[in-house]
Amino acid sequence: MNILGIITEYNPFHYGHLYHLKKAREITNSDGVICVMNGNFMQRGRPALLDKWARTHMAIKNGVDLIIELPLVYGIRSAEYFARGAVELLSNTNIVKNIVFGSESGNLKPLKEIASILLNEDEYFIERIKSYLTIGLSYPHAREKALIDFMKLKGSNNYQSNIKEITEIIMEPNNILGIEYIKAISQLNSSLTPLTIKRQGQNYHAKAINNKISSATAIRECFLNQGLSAITDYLPAESYQILEKWVKNQKIAIKNEYLGAIILATLRKLRPDDLIEFAEINTGLENRIYEAAHQAGDLEELIENIKTRSFTRTRIERNLLHILFDIRQKDFEFLDKKGPQYLRILGLNKQGEKILSKLTGKSSLPVIIKPARFLRSINTKSNDPLIKSLSYDLMASDIYSLLYPNKRERKGHRDFTTPLIKVK
Amino acid sequence: MNILGIITEYNPFHYGHLYHLKKAREITNSDGVICVMNGNFMQRGRPALLDKWARTHMAIKNGVDLIIELPLVYGIRSAEYFARGAVELLSNTNIVKNIVFGSESGNLKPLKEIASILLNEDEYFIERIKSYLTIGLSYPHAREKALIDFMKLKGSNNYQSNIKEITEIIMEPNNILGIEYIKAISQLNSSLTPLTIKRQGQNYHAKAINNKISSATAIRECFLNQGLSAITDYLPAESYQILEKWVKNQKIAIKNEYLGAIILATLRKLRPDDLIEFAEINTGLENRIYEAAHQAGDLEELIENIKTRSFTRTRIERNLLHILFDIRQKDFEFLDKKGPQYLRILGLNKQGEKILSKLTGKSSLPVIIKPARFLRSINTKSNDPLIKSLSYDLMASDIYSLLYPNKRERKGHRDFTTPLIKVK
Repeated sequence: MNILGIITEYNPFHYGHLYHLKKAREITNSDGVICVMNGNFMQRGRPALLDKWARTHMAIKNGVDLIIELPLVYGIRSAEYFARGAVELLSNTNIVKNIVFGSESGNLKPLKEIASILLNEDEYFIERIKSYLTIGLSYPHAREKALIDFMKLKGSNNYQSNIKEITEIIMEPNNILGIEYIKAISQLNSSLTPLTIKRQGQNYHAKAINNKISSATAIRECFLNQGLSAITDYLPAESYQILEKWVKNQKIAIKNEYLGAIILATLRKLRPDDLIEFAEINTGLENRIYEAAHQAGDLEELIENIKTRSFTRTRIERNLLHILFDIRQKDFEFLDKKGPQYLRILGLNKQGEKILSKLTGKSSLPVIIKPARFLRSINTKSNDPLIKSLSYDLMASDIYSLLYPNKRERKGHRDFTTPLIKVK
Repeated sequence: MNILGIITEYNPFHYGHLYHLKKAREITNSDGVICVMNGNFMQRGRPALLDKWARTHMAIKNGVDLIIELPLVYGIRSAEYFARGAVELLSNTNIVKNIVFGSESGNLKPLKEIASILLNEDEYFIERIKSYLTIGLSYPHAREKALIDFMKLKGSNNYQSNIKEITEIIMEPNNILGIEYIKAISQLNSSLTPLTIKRQGQNYHAKAINNKISSATAIRECFLNQGLSAITDYLPAESYQILEKWVKNQKIAIKNEYLGAIILATLRKLRPDDLIEFAEINTGLENRIYEAAHQAGDLEELIENIKTRSFTRTRIERNLLHILFDIRQKDFEFLDKKGPQYLRILGLNKQGEKILSKLTGKSSLPVIIKPARFLRSINTKSNDPLIKSLSYDLMASDIYSLLYPNKRERKGHRDFTTPLIKVK
C-alpha cells in the first residue's frame, strides 16, 4: 500500500484542505491517506471551533481515510515540537511513505536548505539568534535575522536560494512548519519523503473572506461574526452539514468567557515561583503573567497585558494552555525523551479499515481505539509515558466541553464514551 | 471599656441585624461593638452577595464600631469550626467581654445544657451518633437523635429542659451556632460571657418576603429575582444605598456560571485519589463527586448530582469550596492546631479607632490593617500559619472578583489595594 501522510488541524475542513488532499493524492499516486490531526486545542493556543470528533467526521466525509489524533503534549507547542511529534507518529506507523504539506513557497528546495542550516547548529548562527533574542526580538524574528547574517557570512555560493528568497520564506507560518517537518524527518532518520504543494487562495492570516478557498481564520471569523449562513459558499457541503448540526446542538466551543474565568482562576492560585516551572516562562515572563492575571478581567485582556514584541500572542496563548492543563517543563522533558507512545484512531472509512488492519501489524506503537482500556481516570502524574500523555488528551476534552453553550453537552469523559467515527 | 462581640455574615445587613445590634448593646450596656464577619465566601458555601468591604461599610454605617474578618479557613466550614474560629478571635482580642448571638430559642439555659452534653463526649452518646451516621443520617440529624436517646437514658431529672424542648432547639441553625459558641468558650477556657437574643421576624430559611424583619435568604432571593426596587422596604437606608451603588457598578457576585465553570474545571483535573485528601470526602463521597463532575454542566447540577440524605447540600457546597481553594484536610489540621493567627481589621468608625488603639495594646494576636506587609503574594504552602491562613483569604478575594458582571472590576489583589473602610 502506498500511504500518504498529512499533518493538519482542519479547523474547520474547507476548500483549501480539499484541494490539498486531492492534489497530494494525485502527486503521490497514493491509495490511502492518513491524517495526523490536532485534538480539541490548536497549535496556536486556542480551543478548536469544533471538537475533534466533528472535525474527524468532516475530514473522513471529504476523503481522508483514517485520522490519528496528535497528542496534546505536541499539539499545543511551538512549530518545532508540533512538527516533531506529528512526524514521529507518522514515521512510527511504518506504513506511511510520503508526507505532503502545504506551504506558501510551494518549492521544497529552499525549505530543505533552511532546514539544513537550522539542523547544522553552527556556532555563529546560534550566537546570532541569541543576540537577537537579547535585544527583544521574538524567536521567529531572531531566527530569520540570524539566518540572513549566516548566509551573508557563508556567501550565497553555498546555496541555490538567495537571501531575498530565504527572507520571504522563513516568516510564513506554513513554510516554517514545512521546514520543521523536514528537520524532524532528518533528526529521526525517518524514511518518510517530504513533498510540498503551494497553498491556494488566501494566506494563513487573511481575515477577509473573498475567495472560495478562504483561510480557516477568515472562515471562523466570518462564522462567529455573521453566523452560519455567511459561510455557506466557503465550506464543502459535507463540512457545512456537520457544522450546521453542531451549531444546532450548541456544541460550538465559543464560551471564551468561561475559558477566561477558568484560566484566570487557575493563574490567581499561582505565584511567580510556581509559574517558572512551566516551559518558556523562566525568562521574566513569570512576573508579566502574574501581574496581568491580577489585572485582567477576561482572556483577551489577559493576553493583551502579557504580550510584547518578543513574547508573541500565539506563544502566550500556548503558555496559558500549558498552565491550564498543568503541563510543566519537566513533564514535557519527560515525554519528549520518550516520544509519542500511541496511535489514537479517531475515525476512518472503508479504506481506512484496511489501513487500520495493516497498521495494527506494522506500527511500532500501540494502536488505541478505546482509551478506557488504558485509563480509568486521568493520571498525569504517572511514570508511564503512555498513561501520562493520554491523560492530558482526556483532560483537554474534559475541559473543552465546559465551553459549550449547551450545558447538557458539557459532559466529561467523552474520550471514553464517543465511539470511533466510521463513514461507509 | 465594656466591649461587645458579635459573630456575623451580614449578607446583606438588614433590619434583623439592626435589631440584634441595638438590643445586644442595650442588654450588655456596652460602649463598643466589634463584629467578627465572614469574608467573601459564606459559611453555607456560597459567595457573598456583596464583597466584604461593601458589607463592612453597611455594618459600620449601621452602628458597628469595628469589623474583624473571620479567616477563610474558619469561614467556610461546619458550624463547629466556624464558631471555634470566631470565638477564639474574639477571645484573643482580650478586650471583648460579652458575645451576644441571635437564636431561635432566645433562652440560654437549654443551649448550655446541650453544649455540656456535646462537650462531655459520653461514650454512649458518641456511639449513638455513629450508628445514626451509619444508617445514612446527616450529622445534624444523627446528633439530634443521639441527644434524645441520651437524655432518655439519663432521665430528664438531670436536666432542667425536657426532651421536646431540646428536640425543637437542636435543629434550628442559629441555635446550633449558639451551642457551638458556648462549646468553644468552654473549650478555650475563655472569659467571654455568652448571651442570646431571640431572633425576630422570619426564620433563617424563610424565602417569602413579608416582614420588615425579613431573613437575609429572603432578601437575596427577592433581589435576585425581582431586582433592587423590590427590597427597598427590607433594608435600612444605609444598606440599601451601598447595595444600590454596587449594583450600578455591576459588582454583585452573581456570575454563578463562572463559578461553576471554574469549579468543574478544577474537579475535572482531579481523581478520586486526589479528592480523598480533602476534609469530609474520604467516605465514598470522592466517587460521587468524581462522577458528578464529569456529568454536570453547571454548578447547580453538580450539587444536585452529589447530594444525598447524609451529604447535605450545604456540606457539599462547602466541600466544593475547599477543593476550589485547594485547602486539604492536612491544611486544616495544621491551621487548627495553631488557631487564628491575626486580627484583620476591615473597617471602623470613630469609636472603632479608640477600640483599635486599645486592641493593638491588649490583643494576643497581631493586628493586620495592611496585608501587603505580611504577604507579597499568596503562599498557601507556607509553614508559617499566619502567612498560610492569610494567603487563603487573599486567594478567596482574587477568585471572588472574577464573578463580577463588570469585567473592569475583576481585578485581583484587592486585599492589597482596598483601604481600611473608615466612617466618621
